[in-house]
Amino acid sequence: MTKTSPDKKVKVHFDPGNVDIVVEQGENLLQAAIAAGVRIYASCGGAGTCGTCKVLIEKGQVETTRTDKLSDEEYQQGIRQACQSWVVTDLTIYVPVESRLEKAVLSREQKRVSEVLATGWRFTPPLSKFFVELPPPTLEDNASDLSRLLRGLRQRYHLSNLSVDFEVVKKLAKVLRDSDWKVTVTTLVTAVKSRAGDRRRPRVINIEPGDTREKHYSLAFDIGTTTVCGQLLDLNRGMVIAESIAYNGQISYGEDVITRIAYCQKPRGLKKLQQTVVTTINEIIEELLSQSKVAIEHIGHMMVAGNTTMTQILLGLEPKYIRLAPYTPVANFFPPVEASSLGIKVSNQAHLYTFPAVASYVGGDIVSGVVGAGVHQRKNLTFFMDIGTNGEIVIGNSDWMVTASCSAGPAFEGGGIKHGIVASQGAIEEFNIKPSNLEPKIDTIGGTKPKGICGSGLINIVAGLLEAGVIGQNGKFNRNLPTKRVRKGSDGYEYVLARARETQIGKDIVITEVDIDNLMRAKAAMYAGYQTLSKSVGISSRDLEQVIIAGAFGSNINIEKSITIGLLPDLPVDRFIFIGNGSLLGARLTSFSTDLLDDARRVAQMMTNFELSENVDFMNNYVAALFLPHTHAKEFPTVSKKLAKLTNNDSKQRITA
Amino acid sequence: MTKTSPDKKVKVHFDPGNVDIVVEQGENLLQAAIAAGVRIYASCGGAGTCGTCKVLIEKGQVETTRTDKLSDEEYQQGIRQACQSWVVTDLTIYVPVESRLEKAVLSREQKRVSEVLATGWRFTPPLSKFFVELPPPTLEDNASDLSRLLRGLRQRYHLSNLSVDFEVVKKLAKVLRDSDWKVTVTTLVTAVKSRAGDRRRPRVINIEPGDTREKHYSLAFDIGTTTVCGQLLDLNRGMVIAESIAYNGQISYGEDVITRIAYCQKPRGLKKLQQTVVTTINEIIEELLSQSKVAIEHIGHMMVAGNTTMTQILLGLEPKYIRLAPYTPVANFFPPVEASSLGIKVSNQAHLYTFPAVASYVGGDIVSGVVGAGVHQRKNLTFFMDIGTNGEIVIGNSDWMVTASCSAGPAFEGGGIKHGIVASQGAIEEFNIKPSNLEPKIDTIGGTKPKGICGSGLINIVAGLLEAGVIGQNGKFNRNLPTKRVRKGSDGYEYVLARARETQIGKDIVITEVDIDNLMRAKAAMYAGYQTLSKSVGISSRDLEQVIIAGAFGSNINIEKSITIGLLPDLPVDRFIFIGNGSLLGARLTSFSTDLLDDARRVAQMMTNFELSENVDFMNNYVAALFLPHTHAKEFPTVSKKLAKLTNNDSKQRITA
Repeated sequence: MTKTSPDKKVKVHFDPGNVDIVVEQGENLLQAAIAAGVRIYASCGGAGTCGTCKVLIEKGQVETTRTDKLSDEEYQQGIRQACQSWVVTDLTIYVPVESRLEKAVLSREQKRVSEVLATGWRFTPPLSKFFVELPPPTLEDNASDLSRLLRGLRQRYHLSNLSVDFEVVKKLAKVLRDSDWKVTVTTLVTAVKSRAGDRRRPRVINIEPGDTREKHYSLAFDIGTTTVCGQLLDLNRGMVIAESIAYNGQISYGEDVITRIAYCQKPRGLKKLQQTVVTTINEIIEELLSQSKVAIEHIGHMMVAGNTTMTQILLGLEPKYIRLAPYTPVANFFPPVEASSLGIKVSNQAHLYTFPAVASYVGGDIVSGVVGAGVHQRKNLTFFMDIGTNGEIVIGNSDWMVTASCSAGPAFEGGGIKHGIVASQGAIEEFNIKPSNLEPKIDTIGGTKPKGICGSGLINIVAGLLEAGVIGQNGKFNRNLPTKRVRKGSDGYEYVLARARETQIGKDIVITEVDIDNLMRAKAAMYAGYQTLSKSVGISSRDLEQVIIAGAFGSNINIEKSITIGLLPDLPVDRFIFIGNGSLLGARLTSFSTDLLDDARRVAQMMTNFELSENVDFMNNYVAALFLPHTHAKEFPTVSKKLAKLTNNDSKQRITA
Repeated sequence: MTKTSPDKKVKVHFDPGNVDIVVEQGENLLQAAIAAGVRIYASCGGAGTCGTCKVLIEKGQVETTRTDKLSDEEYQQGIRQACQSWVVTDLTIYVPVESRLEKAVLSREQKRVSEVLATGWRFTPPLSKFFVELPPPTLEDNASDLSRLLRGLRQRYHLSNLSVDFEVVKKLAKVLRDSDWKVTVTTLVTAVKSRAGDRRRPRVINIEPGDTREKHYSLAFDIGTTTVCGQLLDLNRGMVIAESIAYNGQISYGEDVITRIAYCQKPRGLKKLQQTVVTTINEIIEELLSQSKVAIEHIGHMMVAGNTTMTQILLGLEPKYIRLAPYTPVANFFPPVEASSLGIKVSNQAHLYTFPAVASYVGGDIVSGVVGAGVHQRKNLTFFMDIGTNGEIVIGNSDWMVTASCSAGPAFEGGGIKHGIVASQGAIEEFNIKPSNLEPKIDTIGGTKPKGICGSGLINIVAGLLEAGVIGQNGKFNRNLPTKRVRKGSDGYEYVLARARETQIGKDIVITEVDIDNLMRAKAAMYAGYQTLSKSVGISSRDLEQVIIAGAFGSNINIEKSITIGLLPDLPVDRFIFIGNGSLLGARLTSFSTDLLDDARRVAQMMTNFELSENVDFMNNYVAALFLPHTHAKEFPTVSKKLAKLTNNDSKQRITA
């Protein structure tokens, strides 16, 4: 590192993304990327121990500390760990898809996210700052320090009925005198039930010397089973000033909530998982602070949305009974807690507010999404859905809401699918089939050779095969087709998507009848849930003003093809709206508006949960939905018409061939 | 200890008090005394290290572990440490006055305590218990555990708008299921300001399996500068079931609040004093539990009254600015805190509520006393006073109250008096003088030979000397009297109360002109404070319906003689009422009645504090009061008349002699 000089400036160019940044010679490459807004995954926080931040040095020179995370082959190709590399000359850097997984997820989410969200809310953050200059005490006016402060706040800002945290009382005398009686007070309003007689009662959670109103920040978090997303919010400007995402460290203890709950039954298991997610949160906070240069003591609050299991584990509450019938959470509304008491590295005064939940499998993430999407603000009906292993659905408007969760199984995440993988580099996502010879045309994430099929790809493949007549509406292969792509494999009939030589894995990538069956079960569970709910409130698809699709997976699906297979109701495409991470959206918006925070409580209370697991209607609907798109053609009139037409064309075509 | 058998019963007789108890052979003598209700002081808690629990074995045999706290002479006299002695045979025990100091103080306090207290309050303890049997969850009704609990409380007891402590949420799932959905919930109402729109909002602080309503206790404490008094309250029966008193361990760090505050300025000084008083509190709690056999987990709350300095130190709040002009406390109202967070050995759910204060030198103890005495309930005027080194006075009624503190100095505690001692065995308390020969007749506490003069004795002596014409109204000795009792000593003129051979100390016990001067300064400060306050609100002594005297010292003074020297206003004796430890009284009553707890907040807010330290009126009144009883004879018409008469009689008598 002796060759570098901090005075000399060099330019670093990042691909893909075409981002340039000028940094001092000797700057750490990971830091340069972060400063440039290039999102490189570094799960160990830049310690060099995880090997996730590998980048390709296409041009120029870095100094590197080599660790055992880098193979000889990689080293010779020019691959380096960004966190272990320091800039020497101008550089051209390629960030491979593995290292920018989160970036990919985030950008994929946002590309189709609608701007139509909750409306009409006032910018009134629950966290507020007030600056007061107080007259110093005299013998004529020697009220207590606290009385003086409260009097000042009342006179200057008409604030009354404040409660005061004991931690504030503890440092009050010193701060007032050190600052010559000029102080900034932070207050927090937590939503209260809006019954008559109750009012919002702000609590004083901090006092700082001088005028610190400019430094006024909070955090919004979505704690997902797979990923944790955080945003740093500037509460003066109503802006996101930094954001970050990371895998939930709990993944090592199981991929879904059921295995996590099971882990909690082990000795100290709950404590372990609680600490693990807190570590993930702390890593994200560290990155947010690093990106924004905000000091940790100016963060006054955390708004957290997560499903019921994630919320209970974060708070250290035994999740056992979420998993056991009749599936009861400990509570739907949790009191705010001191974030630092959970091990979260923020200052003592910062409180953590968790979104209220509806039931064991309809959690604060859904309430947050519903509020963020403004479902509760409209008279017209909305169908809100978050598709995944556990799919949550909500139907309602400003007057009422019903909700349910449908256990779809892991097919949408690539689970139980022969060549299924999570949405990552090399996953087949787009699929088209040439009607004349039934040859496939595939596209993968990152444009590389394929290595598997992700959930959204699976939907597109099955829809394509159905429309081409390669499979029938029962999901079985047409066994009399003039193509070698359909063949009998070790798991029964299958369609070859890519020959071994065209893949990264050196094997044929196929989709099997078993895979199709698994997808049909998954989509049937979602649709049967929707049907059961809508029947229970006496509405039909035609009554829906809009369908809101939340969640990372949902944002990447093709609407038309999802309707074709019977996952989504048969409605015009323009009625579907993607909101991306609705949970994070709601956490952000409620950080900006106490009105919406009040709404969140109200929404959680007004939602009626339907327990589908032993519901007879649901079982009947489920069986009827085990067909493409559905046993009852009238449920999917458009699709049925299209399929009939295609079949005719197809027949014609094949006859003329 | 091998000789004793737990099967054999023996009888222990305690004097004075004439108490018998039958215990098993081998029982510890201190424990036997506690079980018999005989109060023996054991400041080290029975570890054998303090030597305060010495008793005289008059008859019978004990086994003893001898420590260095017992001199050879004591041992030969039959004195033993009770905590280090175990019962062998039937015993007759004499508890000397030193070992029952607290008993003496307590009983002295109560002998003249009036029953006229706060009236008309409902028995509605802020701490309540509710038993509910909940229907177990089903698939049709799988509300969260907390919702189920709150629903049950609403249906059965019409409780709504509850807030719930996080600690309760944490154990909720387990307790509900372990107890088969039959649980007892403890709620706590903390007083809220009674402005429109505010309501009492009970918080759920504990949940226990089964029906535990019978076990329903709380603690009331007075934290005094010198002594700490605690009572264990049965909240079902509205009864005190155990009480205990101990010296505040902080005494080792200084006798008054000023030296304690000074100590807090040392490194870790505040922490040290905080821990010290907590240790005292813990010792008292231990004794209360031992007396009552109540289990610690059934104590749900602590109500604590103390002066502003004691309260701030207990809560760990820097008391520095109480001592520095313009004398500002940190706060008048303190949020409730978890008692265990201060180191107090109660269960986690128990909250500690400290009485609100008015000013740096008018603390929660005075507010507590005023509420306990019902001053705020009467239209007619009350003068409330707590006499001591720091004398606090209050004048007011149900509509208004004014208050002040008067720095009387330590004379009332025996400080600054040549032979002054605290009220303990051998302290001269009663004094009469034979007009014919001016010889004294004295009585001491415990009836032993005298060893000094306590504060109440000092008042009686000065009044007696004044009435006998031995001293003049200026406090100076009449130097032409036919008695050798008045003589010139090393500190100027003095009166010999006891000759060396009659005393425990082997020296003449005298009262000097300097002593009298110090007492005059002390009483002048109190009276000047009263005068200044009453003038400020435009009332005279005639307007006072009653005078309430609170505090351990106050309870032992002679009213007539206190009027004679000008300490108390010249009013008929029947207008004076003793309430003993008003601070403890208020803490107890507010533990029994949420109405009174609300009153405490209101009283603290309605009191207007007058800062006397640089008040010109006060200074003038003080100078005028440096006379016996007062420079202005019309302030004390009865006394003036009596003195005139006595002087005449005296002249006549001496002429005829």
